Amino acid sequence: MSRIAYVNGRYVPHAEAAVHIEDRGYQFGDGVYEVCEVRDGALIDETRHLARLARSLRELRIRRPMSDAALKVVLRETIRRNRVRDGIVYLQVTRGVARRDHYFPPESVAPALVVTARSSDRAKVEATAAAGASVITLPENRWPRVDIKSIGLLPNVLAKQQARDAGAREAWFVDADGFVTEGGSTNAWIVTAAGAIVTRPADAGILRGVTRATVFDMARELGLTIEERAFSVDEAKAAREAFITAATTIVTSVIAIDGAPVGDGAPGPVARELRRRFHDFAERAGR
Amino acid sequence: MSRIAYVNGRYVPHAEAAVHIEDRGYQFGDGVYEVCEVRDGALIDETRHLARLARSLRELRIRRPMSDAALKVVLRETIRRNRVRDGIVYLQVTRGVARRDHYFPPESVAPALVVTARSSDRAKVEATAAAGASVITLPENRWPRVDIKSIGLLPNVLAKQQARDAGAREAWFVDADGFVTEGGSTNAWIVTAAGAIVTRPADAGILRGVTRATVFDMARELGLTIEERAFSVDEAKAAREAFITAATTIVTSVIAIDGAPVGDGAPGPVARELRRRFHDFAERAGR
Repeated sequence: MSRIAYVNGRYVPHAEAAVHIEDRGYQFGDGVYEVCEVRDGALIDETRHLARLARSLRELRIRRPMSDAALKVVLRETIRRNRVRDGIVYLQVTRGVARRDHYFPPESVAPALVVTARSSDRAKVEATAAAGASVITLPENRWPRVDIKSIGLLPNVLAKQQARDAGAREAWFVDADGFVTEGGSTNAWIVTAAGAIVTRPADAGILRGVTRATVFDMARELGLTIEERAFSVDEAKAAREAFITAATTIVTSVIAIDGAPVGDGAPGPVARELRRRFHDFAERAGR
Repeated sequence: MSRIAYVNGRYVPHAEAAVHIEDRGYQFGDGVYEVCEVRDGALIDETRHLARLARSLRELRIRRPMSDAALKVVLRETIRRNRVRDGIVYLQVTRGVARRDHYFPPESVAPALVVTARSSDRAKVEATAAAGASVITLPENRWPRVDIKSIGLLPNVLAKQQARDAGAREAWFVDADGFVTEGGSTNAWIVTAAGAIVTRPADAGILRGVTRATVFDMARELGLTIEERAFSVDEAKAAREAFITAATTIVTSVIAIDGAPVGDGAPGPVARELRRRFHDFAERAGR
């Protein structure tokens, strides 16, 4: 079946889905995005994704392309037209098309909206998660406004490719003080010897991960101890477990950091339990 | 006359010039660009622009879309089809179109090349330059690899818009030690009380500006004293003159910094002389 994309008001065959060369997303990286998981045909954490999108747009003074209600219709229609039962829906909003000039274009320029959806094989996704992920660590080199989910992802692209070149899946950025900020496309967590789960506060240096927030709520409900604080690479290497979270990754165990095994080098029980329970919790929470 | 753009092997009407939504330039900012001045139908500093493009691509491990010889033909043809005598030619190379994934796509994915050209009114450009530019200063917040001329320009866009909101034209980024790095789209210079021209070394924290390099050569030929070192905001405010350089700006005087006049608040003689001589020098140098 051929894929369909939503591009500025029209549903078009994916192969022909195009934007103008002077879309500011293409020439300046002047836009933001969200990725939502689709599971059993439903959007996971949709409310939180839309709230974060609104915040990103506000921070950049980009107009919302449409109301949340209208956007929800477009997301669902894109999912439906692509017959996605399990997979992801991706949306991107840019400041629109204008003659190239750094300054914001006039108010009359409409923001651009692109939405795509694609299926994934649930069994394959689970097998990948069950194998766990290796990470490498790299000096943080992104701009300080990583709280905005901008499409300016070149540092992330380079970090993740460096991970792949090293035989790993993810790269963790490490700040000047030796603390892990987050991964190239995931948030970073550890489990301490005492069984507490630790992740960096979302007030500085990281994106306020949607999946991170839902894992937080779930961990609280499960009665786990949560420590919202930065952790160092050394602490992570010595941790009982480590894991990463994102809408596409959900909860995936980290089995090695810079080539050194975490714990016994296999996915640990806390991360596995969080992953196992995630969708029930998220659907129940109705976000 | 309608404009024409070069897009991946075809010359197309500008209004219809489009790239796929999964071009990595659009989804990741995964690409680089150059802007060349066109003057009397000739490309200014072409050799240096192409050399810098090659370097940017190499640093990002993006393949060159074509040889320099072929690229020169495309640049000239785009200029010719748009009947540009004075103006600019813009080129952008991205890592190409691939299913969205941070990691580099397979080698088989070809890089994308877009070229546009547009005319400018020489009298208007000169009048703007003669008026001089005001700048504001902002904390440096770009990633450290600003030596790569990437299309990830969101921090620059925000800084330049902040300048405009403050009634200024350019924003100078200032590093943690209080030294000016460069502007949102220009290099930064001052002239000391002793008449020396000062600009930051291009080995760290700034883009190796093509116009900067040519101004350097010209200043040397004119027997001016050049100090390649960082300068603070305070030093700039107290300088005899200040100016900015870029392919579109050439040499333009800075007449105010954060609202305080530089010198007597009018374009100074050194910057005016450098601007007046620039094109003769650049054409003679044949770059």
